[in-house]
Amino acid sequence: MRFLLPLFLVGGLCSGQGAGECKPNSLNIPGAKHPCVYPDGRAEFRLTAPDAQKVQLRVGKNFDMVKGGDGVWSVTTTPLVVGFHYYTFAVDGANVADPASRTFFGSGWDNSGIEIPEPPEVDYYAHKNVPHGQVSQRWYYSTVTAKWRRCYVYTPPDYDAAKKRYPVLYLMHGWGENEQGWHTQGRADLILDNLIAEKKAVPMIIVMDNLNAAKPGEDATIFSARWMWPQPPPPPAGTPAGARPAAPRGLAGFTGATFTEMMLTDLAPMIEKTYRVLPGREHRAMAGLSMGGMQTFLTTLSNLDKFAYIGGFSGSSGGRGGAFDPKTSNNGVFADSAAFNKKVKVLFLGIGSVEGPGAKNFSEALTKAGIRNTYFESPGTAHEWLTWRRCLNDFAPRLFR
Amino acid sequence: MRFLLPLFLVGGLCSGQGAGECKPNSLNIPGAKHPCVYPDGRAEFRLTAPDAQKVQLRVGKNFDMVKGGDGVWSVTTTPLVVGFHYYTFAVDGANVADPASRTFFGSGWDNSGIEIPEPPEVDYYAHKNVPHGQVSQRWYYSTVTAKWRRCYVYTPPDYDAAKKRYPVLYLMHGWGENEQGWHTQGRADLILDNLIAEKKAVPMIIVMDNLNAAKPGEDATIFSARWMWPQPPPPPAGTPAGARPAAPRGLAGFTGATFTEMMLTDLAPMIEKTYRVLPGREHRAMAGLSMGGMQTFLTTLSNLDKFAYIGGFSGSSGGRGGAFDPKTSNNGVFADSAAFNKKVKVLFLGIGSVEGPGAKNFSEALTKAGIRNTYFESPGTAHEWLTWRRCLNDFAPRLFR
Repeated sequence: MRFLLPLFLVGGLCSGQGAGECKPNSLNIPGAKHPCVYPDGRAEFRLTAPDAQKVQLRVGKNFDMVKGGDGVWSVTTTPLVVGFHYYTFAVDGANVADPASRTFFGSGWDNSGIEIPEPPEVDYYAHKNVPHGQVSQRWYYSTVTAKWRRCYVYTPPDYDAAKKRYPVLYLMHGWGENEQGWHTQGRADLILDNLIAEKKAVPMIIVMDNLNAAKPGEDATIFSARWMWPQPPPPPAGTPAGARPAAPRGLAGFTGATFTEMMLTDLAPMIEKTYRVLPGREHRAMAGLSMGGMQTFLTTLSNLDKFAYIGGFSGSSGGRGGAFDPKTSNNGVFADSAAFNKKVKVLFLGIGSVEGPGAKNFSEALTKAGIRNTYFESPGTAHEWLTWRRCLNDFAPRLFR
Repeated sequence: MRFLLPLFLVGGLCSGQGAGECKPNSLNIPGAKHPCVYPDGRAEFRLTAPDAQKVQLRVGKNFDMVKGGDGVWSVTTTPLVVGFHYYTFAVDGANVADPASRTFFGSGWDNSGIEIPEPPEVDYYAHKNVPHGQVSQRWYYSTVTAKWRRCYVYTPPDYDAAKKRYPVLYLMHGWGENEQGWHTQGRADLILDNLIAEKKAVPMIIVMDNLNAAKPGEDATIFSARWMWPQPPPPPAGTPAGARPAAPRGLAGFTGATFTEMMLTDLAPMIEKTYRVLPGREHRAMAGLSMGGMQTFLTTLSNLDKFAYIGGFSGSSGGRGGAFDPKTSNNGVFADSAAFNKKVKVLFLGIGSVEGPGAKNFSEALTKAGIRNTYFESPGTAHEWLTWRRCLNDFAPRLFR
């Protein structure tokens, strides 16, 4: 035994150098051990690509992968921030999802996803043994866009049994995402289930629709995966107009007018006809992340007779059209602060601390102009879903009080 | 005009050589023009992979792609069969999804999908201007597997308004798929919406759960993407047992016992508690495709006190355990044909005509043994989702009459 004991100790030290077990990413397909996540947030990725010349991992920043003798490329990252991250591989110049991860619609296509876990005590978006609501897929026809559309509707746990009416939150995704984002990447249903169980939030209906709304003939390319269709070079002189497709527009061309019209003409009436909804502006909220926050401000600030609660998560009207001027911005809706404060019960501005001071500056400018608002900062997170989960977790309890 | 007319004709003939317009696959991401489908069923695929040495398309069979000067690889296939097909690219040996298509969970991972349209008059799974039911995501805790599980529940268009009780169809996916298959690849909700609108089917609830059910400690690798983890070579002599993972099992190890136990202990009671369900075996059906058909036969034939309607779509108990013997197969459930026929209102065996004679032979053997059954053959389709859409469209009207 005298000889064996030191050997055991050496073994223990060696495995200790690995900084703990690399646990499979919770978003992996069944059976996939990689990507996996170390306790310190480093993640190890693998891809079988025996004949590739170069493989790169793209998860916020780029990591070159190294080929093993078995044709499997691998890399271990530096520690990643907690929360959900989209990621992809570049295989000899092809941008593709990792076949070992479930995919998540972002940037206009189905990316891979990795979840860097928060500490175990952070469980506001975990599956807990509490009553669960449901998320329902609902098809409806839009007269404005002349197309069938799909939304998802969260109904709270007591919806079927209680037979009462509920307030409604319209909750929007960001650029390049869709109506599935909030209940997959965002875990909105679990966040509300947990808040409602703890009586921190009023039971509410949440409507998750798609920002994409173009009338027949309108250009919808703003919403597509622009990296796939790089800006073409200018056509040679003499090329007939229309002979090549227009380059996708930037966000600068975004007005949100068609979505607002569609929402008020088709979506909200369908919801209020289909679900047991409390009527009136004091039972109606709208919030969104990034471009969905922009949409929220565009829709609600032009329709304060219809909305009393407004949330912008990493997206608002702050930066639009140059400097903010309380007298003229958004058609002067902020000019009479007393009237605005009386109407708008909650004006919420959330942001990740890594995203920069835009939202904070806007909040301070609003405060200076006498506009009551709530500023929320998610510590240590960027323009990503963990910021928006935290925003929803802070915003929802403020609604419909 | 005399000179112009022939020129027009020539133009017409030139474009005629291309056999019509290549229309974007309906399952593409927003804005993606490829893959596209010609009227004759040929499809053109593209992938940007400027540094790749070899790119192959895999859609049933393999097609080598050709690199253009712009780094875009492309190929036009031979005509593909109508309906939904999974497909992937092999990029220098890496099996990946096409970033230009939405992904669909099959073979244990998120593949790409292409839809070769049926003629326009075939619209039983199209969005039509009829009342639509909804598909709801429902979380529940399984005491049998000791895990949270997710199912999707279709409720018919009049569910909220009518306040009545409904019969239930439990509808299972195939190997490597999941609880999302039937309402994405399968379009089960649209098929039922259309059947109900035409009064061809009784309004019913459809429960779409996940075949994967393993108790703590049970091996669940049968359900994983086996191609990703090829059979390892035998370990060197002297390797301790358990030092390397066991190779995934084949379907031969599938008994379905844990799913049956989970379904009867956790799923069905949750459904009957949560939804307005008609009680009793004459209001309960189960069907499934491929492995889900095997599961259906395993579950229902051992529990005829609970099910009166049984459907196997490209999957049944026919081939299990050697030749079918009406006296002994499935613990002798077919031995007393009169008793069986009295109990089982519909025994449905569907198959694609390209799949071979297995289901037909089984149907004939059952008939010969005096067992009443319905044989349905989908013309020209293989072991694919169009076969199963057609099966459901034929099977659902037979239920709960």
